This record gives sequence, C-alpha cells and structure tokens, in this order.
Amino acid sequence: MRTLGAAARAASGVLSCADAAIKSRALKAMAERLDAARAELKAANGVDVARAAEGGLDAARLDRLGINDKTIDRMIDGVLQVEKLPDPVGEVTDLSYRPTGIQVGRMRVPLGVIAIIYESRPNVTAEAASLCLKSGNACILRGGSEAIESNRAIAACVSAALGDVQLPMAAVQLVRTPDRAAVGALLKLDEHIDVIVPRGGKTLIERISRESRIPVIKHLDGVCHLYIDDAADLEMSLSIAFNSKAEKYAVCNALETLLVAEGMAGQVLPGLGERFAQAGVELRGCPKAQRWLPSAKDATEADWQAEYLGPVLAVRVVDGVDQAINHINRYGSQHTDAIVTQNYARARHFLRAVDSSSVMVNASTQFADGMEYGLGAEIGISTDKLHARGPVGLHGLTTEKYVVFGNGEIRHR
Amino acid sequence: MRTLGAAARAASGVLSCADAAIKSRALKAMAERLDAARAELKAANGVDVARAAEGGLDAARLDRLGINDKTIDRMIDGVLQVEKLPDPVGEVTDLSYRPTGIQVGRMRVPLGVIAIIYESRPNVTAEAASLCLKSGNACILRGGSEAIESNRAIAACVSAALGDVQLPMAAVQLVRTPDRAAVGALLKLDEHIDVIVPRGGKTLIERISRESRIPVIKHLDGVCHLYIDDAADLEMSLSIAFNSKAEKYAVCNALETLLVAEGMAGQVLPGLGERFAQAGVELRGCPKAQRWLPSAKDATEADWQAEYLGPVLAVRVVDGVDQAINHINRYGSQHTDAIVTQNYARARHFLRAVDSSSVMVNASTQFADGMEYGLGAEIGISTDKLHARGPVGLHGLTTEKYVVFGNGEIRHR
Repeated sequence: MRTLGAAARAASGVLSCADAAIKSRALKAMAERLDAARAELKAANGVDVARAAEGGLDAARLDRLGINDKTIDRMIDGVLQVEKLPDPVGEVTDLSYRPTGIQVGRMRVPLGVIAIIYESRPNVTAEAASLCLKSGNACILRGGSEAIESNRAIAACVSAALGDVQLPMAAVQLVRTPDRAAVGALLKLDEHIDVIVPRGGKTLIERISRESRIPVIKHLDGVCHLYIDDAADLEMSLSIAFNSKAEKYAVCNALETLLVAEGMAGQVLPGLGERFAQAGVELRGCPKAQRWLPSAKDATEADWQAEYLGPVLAVRVVDGVDQAINHINRYGSQHTDAIVTQNYARARHFLRAVDSSSVMVNASTQFADGMEYGLGAEIGISTDKLHARGPVGLHGLTTEKYVVFGNGEIRHR
Repeated sequence: MRTLGAAARAASGVLSCADAAIKSRALKAMAERLDAARAELKAANGVDVARAAEGGLDAARLDRLGINDKTIDRMIDGVLQVEKLPDPVGEVTDLSYRPTGIQVGRMRVPLGVIAIIYESRPNVTAEAASLCLKSGNACILRGGSEAIESNRAIAACVSAALGDVQLPMAAVQLVRTPDRAAVGALLKLDEHIDVIVPRGGKTLIERISRESRIPVIKHLDGVCHLYIDDAADLEMSLSIAFNSKAEKYAVCNALETLLVAEGMAGQVLPGLGERFAQAGVELRGCPKAQRWLPSAKDATEADWQAEYLGPVLAVRVVDGVDQAINHINRYGSQHTDAIVTQNYARARHFLRAVDSSSVMVNASTQFADGMEYGLGAEIGISTDKLHARGPVGLHGLTTEKYVVFGNGEIRHR
C-alpha cells in the first residue's frame, strides 16, 4: 500500500502540470477504451454478479452492481461530459498590485492525491477517475469487494487510456486486494494522500471519519426541510412540497420534515394530505398538524431527526419563520432547506439565517445536485463546512495557492 | 466548558445575521474601551509580568508578554483596521440562471464558532476577537496561563463593547481556567466548535492537531526556499536572497535554504557569502557550493529539512530549475518558495510546479504575510491544503453555502 501511495504521489507531480489538452485526450481515450471493452466489462461484471447472487446479496445492491450496455453508455457519456468541462487548474484570480510593487493573486491547483472509497456501483470507478484526472489529481480507488472484477476491468481501460497519451499509469490506481484491512492501511497513508472521499452508507463514512488522520470530504445525513410561510402561494406550496418529497425518495436531497406556518396550515395541509395519501406517503404530524391531517400518526422527537429515505414525512406546524429557522438549525443536518414565500423580508432572512449547504427560496429541495447547479459531474455532496460544502465538483477537488510576481522587490519591516 | 460551548453556539446564530453596521459599531466601541482602560490593562499586565519573572520565564517570552502604551496603541490600531475591512459575510457570487429556471449562486457565511488557542502575546486576544467578530463568528479564546490577567482585562473591554451595541457577550468568551486540561476539554467540544486555530509553537500545534476531532487550521513549519536561476539578474539575486534571509530571522517566511543554478554559482555565491558573513549569518553548503563559499560548513541531510529561524542558511548548487523544484517539493514545508529569473518559461513552470501556499517570482519570501497580500490582518498562515491555504484573513474564517432562487420550479428526473 505504501508503494501504491508513493507511486500516486510521484504521478501527481506530473498530473498537476499536465495541460488541458493532454487531459482532454486522456479522457477521450478513456471513453474509447470503455466502448471497445464492452464484452470484457460485461464478462467481468458477470463474474461479480454471479458471486454476489450466490453470496446472497440483496436485490437492491445486486441491481446497483449490474453493468449492461445502457450503464456502459452512461459511463462513457459521463467521461465525455467531464472532458467538456473547463479545466479548473491554473486559473488565477484577484491578481492585483500592492503598494510595495508586488502583484499578488491566487492560482487554482490540484489537491494532490485523492483516495476514493466506495461501495457497490462499479460506474464510480470511471466517474471518480475522470473527475480526478480533469482536476489534475492522482487518485487511489478502493471499490467494494463485491465489484472487484468489474472495477478491475474498468481500471484496465483507464490505465490503457493513460498509456495512450503517455500520462503515468499511477495517476489512477485501483486497490486490488479485496480485504477490509486495505481501507485501514489507506487511512494511515497521510504522507501520500491529501484527502479521502468516502462514498457509500453512513456506517462506512462514519468509520472512515473516525479512523482517518487524513482530511475527509464527507456526506452524512440529508435531513432536508421545507418551510411553507404565511405569505406562500398555495399552488406553489403544494407542488414544491410534493416534488421535494416524492420525486424520488431514496436521495439525500429528498424532503424529510415539512414545516407549515400556522396561518397556512388550514389551506395547505388538507390538499397535501390527499396527494401524499394517493402517493402512499405516510405522514407523522405534531398535534396541530394532525388537526388538518386526521390520518397522520403522532410525530415523536425521533421523527424530527429522521432521514427516512422513503415514503414517510414528518409534518410540524410552526408560529412563523423564526420558529422554522430554529427547528431547522436544531434538527437539520445542514444539507438542503427551503422556504416557500412571496414575502421579500422573510425570504432574505431565511437565506441568511439557515446554516445549511444549500438554502432555497421557492424551489424543490431535489434540485440540490451538482448537475442541476451547473458544476458538471459531482463526486458527492459535502455536509462539512470547511473546504467543500454542498455538491462537490471539480472545484472541490482543487485548492488555491498564492502567486506573487515581482521585479526585485524586497521587504522593509 | 460545555456551557461555554453552548453559549458560543447560541451567540453565533445572532452574530451570523448581524449586519455590517452593528459589527462596525462593536469594533469601534472595542477600540474606545481599550483606550479608556489603559491603566487597568497595564496594571493587570504588571501582575502577569511579575509572576512570570518570578517563575523564571525567559527574556524573549517576557518581552512578548509585556504591555505598554505602544502595544496598546498597536492593539487599538489593529481593531480599527479590521473595522475598515469590507464585511465578507453575505457576499453572493456566481449567481446565474440554470436551464430549469432556478438561479444558483454561492453566499459567503461565517464558519460558526471558532476556538483560538494561543501562547504568551496578550494582544492576540484583541486581534482574534476583532477578526472573528468582523467575520460573524463567535469565538472562544484560550490564551497562555502566564498572560491570564492581561487577557482577562482585554476580554473585559471586548465584553463591554459587545454590551455597548447590544450584541451577545458570549460572542467572545475567554477560557478563564489557566490549567492545561481546559485545552483538552475544548478539543472535545465538536458539537459546539466548528474550527480550531492554534497559534504558537510547533509542540502546541502538533498536540492540538493530534488530539482534536474538530478541524484545525494550522501552521507548522516554514522551510522556505529561494532558487536563483541561470537567467537571474545578478543584483536582484543578491538583494532578494539577502532580504529573504536577513530582514528578520525568527519569522516563518524567512529563507532557510538557498538553491543556486550551477551556471550562476560563480557569480552569485562569492558576493552573497561576503554579505552574509558581514551580517553574521552562518552558511552550510553542499560540496559544489563550498567551492565558492570556502568558509561554509558541510550541509547535511538535516540541513535541507531545517527551519533555523535564526542566522543560519543552507546553500545547495543545483543543475537547473527541475532539480530546484524537486528539492523544494521534497524538503520544503509547502509554505513559501521563490525563483529569481528573467526567463519567462522557467518562471511559468516554477509557479505551476512548486506545490506551496505561496510561490513567488523575483520577490522576497518575507512578503508572505496577510498585510502584504492585502488581506488586512491575518489570524495565521496555514500550511494545510484544504479550506484555507497561506495567510488566513477574514476570508479564511468564512465558508460558502449555495443559495437557490426559484419561482415554483420542481425537478423532473
């Protein structure tokens, strides 16, 4: 593992100076190599799927593990989309002259070596490799052991593509040992790894955050809120509330708790109760909400903290915007929270006072996503405050350094 | 300590929404309160100094501990300088419409609660309080036990000023127990503290980084390099090399290793050797450097890694820019490194390939400083890569969140 780390560090030196053109050529070559290797990819995946089915993997995870021509198409499209994004590396901003005569600015640069630890979906291998390559970072990929053959086949395409354009193959390395100890060893390579991005279930992410001495860009819960204000448009409220919850349940930007201003409860809740009932969404309400939602169960303290990721919604009636903000800052997970209102002052106050990675006015929480925000592909959504917050795209995989241009200036203290 | 943390968290909610005008009034009140309390400040400091002198504190630390009218003037000036800086909070950037109709941008927001752990200089109390206040953060200050009376007196001025403008006094809290265990307790308050900024010796910073579960903005070594290229101007080389080392020795941006291109060694080193000899700077050279610096001692592997912080300089002759870059990326501490050259391509290459928080062309390394860079005051210089890198001013004490403005848009997947 130490050899792997040292090789990644050496490759990152080359990659950080690679120009946009060669990185583009590498990504195009990657897409071509994946396209040419369809048979090998499917065969390798077949081995994984058969082994996983034998081992009794549940249906949902088996489904995520599978590769077919459609998923290969999506993988290729993903790589080509990353290719088209502007190269973030080397961008210089805020370059200005100081009174001493020196010119000071900031240059965007790669982080260095990124380790990505993920679970069953093998397409992450291509996605992570392309994002790291484009942002000038070397990467070490550690996929789930159940996807090892698929990941090896994808990684072979990536290596071949790097070879095609004469970039170091160690720019993208796959950890080939399927044992759990490999993750532990990775977490200790603080000399060679600059940041770890875990993608997967909460248990994995918590374990990594706890054990790692290396900075982690992590995504924990998405306990998202929508607050329907007194001054909300009724139709808009119904539409945004329903979409935020029911467009897709098992996503981190799905609505988990609906807050309704007391003055709007009578107008909003009966209609919403009906729509959610039709969609099979179970409601759990505070006593005031239950007056308008007779079939709703009692919401408990645990419901305010819950990330259901399924067809369940907690509903609370609040006094107004301040109580809504307090509820969100207390129970939320600082992921995505929205207000529906036509009141200018309250919209402005909500935006400033809610301490979450995405704060929205009059839009569905399900928009919280790198593609929707225009970042291109994302490596994840960060619920941390430092460095990267919210959807993490190429920008989040880079940092800045100061650059100073002079003409012989010296400092006089 | 938990009570202190909870109070800070509550105050941070108020402070994050405080507008620029009230924060300005608070800072002006702070300056007035410090000015009015000169007698109390000097008396409190007298107690600290007497106790420290009795306890046998060394002269350098005693000097740093002392407060007189001049240091009070500087403290007041510092606070008023921070007052004049633009308020970073609430700035929205890159706000643009997406194809779905939503408008997405990023808003600069405070980090929340910042703990600052520092050593003897009591002026840090006023400095840290003003930077945190301006950036909308609540802060918990833990100064050195030898400065406890001085810090209490300064903190009393800060509290009074917060009271003057009706901001919560818990926005700036001083840890009043002088024992070491207090630091350990602070490091465990991950629920209430968002980031820790240690300011002091390497031992303190290493201890905090090791023990803390909270993110740390830290500054370790400053092993700074200057590379004099073949195409360097001779006079400029001498002047920058001398200033980078000798303008001030005990600073993190002072030069520690000089690298000289083989073709320039004969021109640069004899003259430089003379100037350094006059200034009493001891030179330690590689065998090639010693040919031109006959009085230089042998440089060992330890010298390439050393942060002397004193009148000692390591000198190495290298083949050219690539060997210089390799040396810097291997032995440097990613703080500040500079090249002297008139060659365009090599300047450009050096800027991109050196992986340090400040990379300079034709300027003294001693410029690496928040004031010189135009950030206003700085809370420190970060040698980390994530979040804040290089001099950390108000910007480094804030983060961003995404803001989304819509008109009822919902997502269709």
